[in-house]
Amino acid sequence: MSESSNKRGIALVLSGPSGVGKDAVREPLLAACPGLRQSISATTRPMRPGERDGVDYHFLTKEDFEAAIRREEFLEYTLYNGNYYGTPAPFAKKELDEGKDLLFKIEVQGALNVKRFFPDAVLVFLVPPSMEVLWKRMTGRGTEDPETQKARFRTAYRELEFASQYDYIVTNGDLNETVEHVRAIYLAEKARIDRSMALVKTLLQEEIQ
Amino acid sequence: MSESSNKRGIALVLSGPSGVGKDAVREPLLAACPGLRQSISATTRPMRPGERDGVDYHFLTKEDFEAAIRREEFLEYTLYNGNYYGTPAPFAKKELDEGKDLLFKIEVQGALNVKRFFPDAVLVFLVPPSMEVLWKRMTGRGTEDPETQKARFRTAYRELEFASQYDYIVTNGDLNETVEHVRAIYLAEKARIDRSMALVKTLLQEEIQ
Repeated sequence: MSESSNKRGIALVLSGPSGVGKDAVREPLLAACPGLRQSISATTRPMRPGERDGVDYHFLTKEDFEAAIRREEFLEYTLYNGNYYGTPAPFAKKELDEGKDLLFKIEVQGALNVKRFFPDAVLVFLVPPSMEVLWKRMTGRGTEDPETQKARFRTAYRELEFASQYDYIVTNGDLNETVEHVRAIYLAEKARIDRSMALVKTLLQEEIQ
Repeated sequence: MSESSNKRGIALVLSGPSGVGKDAVREPLLAACPGLRQSISATTRPMRPGERDGVDYHFLTKEDFEAAIRREEFLEYTLYNGNYYGTPAPFAKKELDEGKDLLFKIEVQGALNVKRFFPDAVLVFLVPPSMEVLWKRMTGRGTEDPETQKARFRTAYRELEFASQYDYIVTNGDLNETVEHVRAIYLAEKARIDRSMALVKTLLQEEIQ
């Protein structure tokens, strides 16, 4: 590991299959982790009730999104169920280079793209306690028609196959436990030897007596 | 990773330079981590005030210890400042194979030996906030003569050089924070992909509708 990697911030990627509850984890996780900031994604999907533009996502038209793709402004983007999702790369890179830790809450295939840009990104894959619970969560939301629900559920199955490419798996059953576990991963990653050897070098340079 | 590795317990090794405070961390850490059990070491060093045989260590005579070495009963052993320290290997192996997580609180070179027996052991290296703090802790203990204190302090400097062979570094300043950080490492390691892919396999086998 190079010296500079000691100072680079952590790119913590929170992902998992459609409907697993990534959105619900995000805010309490950020509240529990001072020093971890949200990296805001862009999307062309319709805004859901309660969502705010520029806070939950940058909500873009398809035309604006594709123009941004051509300007190569995205860290990652993916087309998912007919909608674009993406994260502005230059903003994230600058923050990480300054040593800030960033949380990326993105879809499964987009999450894997992050490692192409930031090989030391930490990928966390949320899974439901059971597929039955996942189905109940999806249908309980009540904002989509039955066919869309079934399509999302089939997508979730396919997305589970990507889990092996992630670094960590956390079961999202009880929200408090999920937050605690993802926070533990964040704290542990900060203590990993390649990010913390600078501490030891400082001690060895100290002269006593 | 083989299927069996999913079920094997975690060997969590708590180490760090002489005087850094490994003993103080051990009990609150075990209290904070249900499922993590103490692996009891053996030693030939004199019992200190407040220590109990079979709880803090198995206190052995040098003759008994060397006989156990010849019977190859030690997971690790090392000669440190004229005293033997070691951990009975067969006991630890059996517990880990049964899926139990074990905490090993051992000296720096002994800790590195653990990886030879259990390559997936998780090595945590405690460091003091500063060498000045370490010196104050050592001399504040008041149970050793000045020459022994100085020798231990020089040893601590040399032991810091081994940090790069560990997996994690945790600064032992505030005890509560130290316990929280080591616990985070333990939780994170349990969520690592090579230990948790079984969760996903179970989900994929679930049949819904």
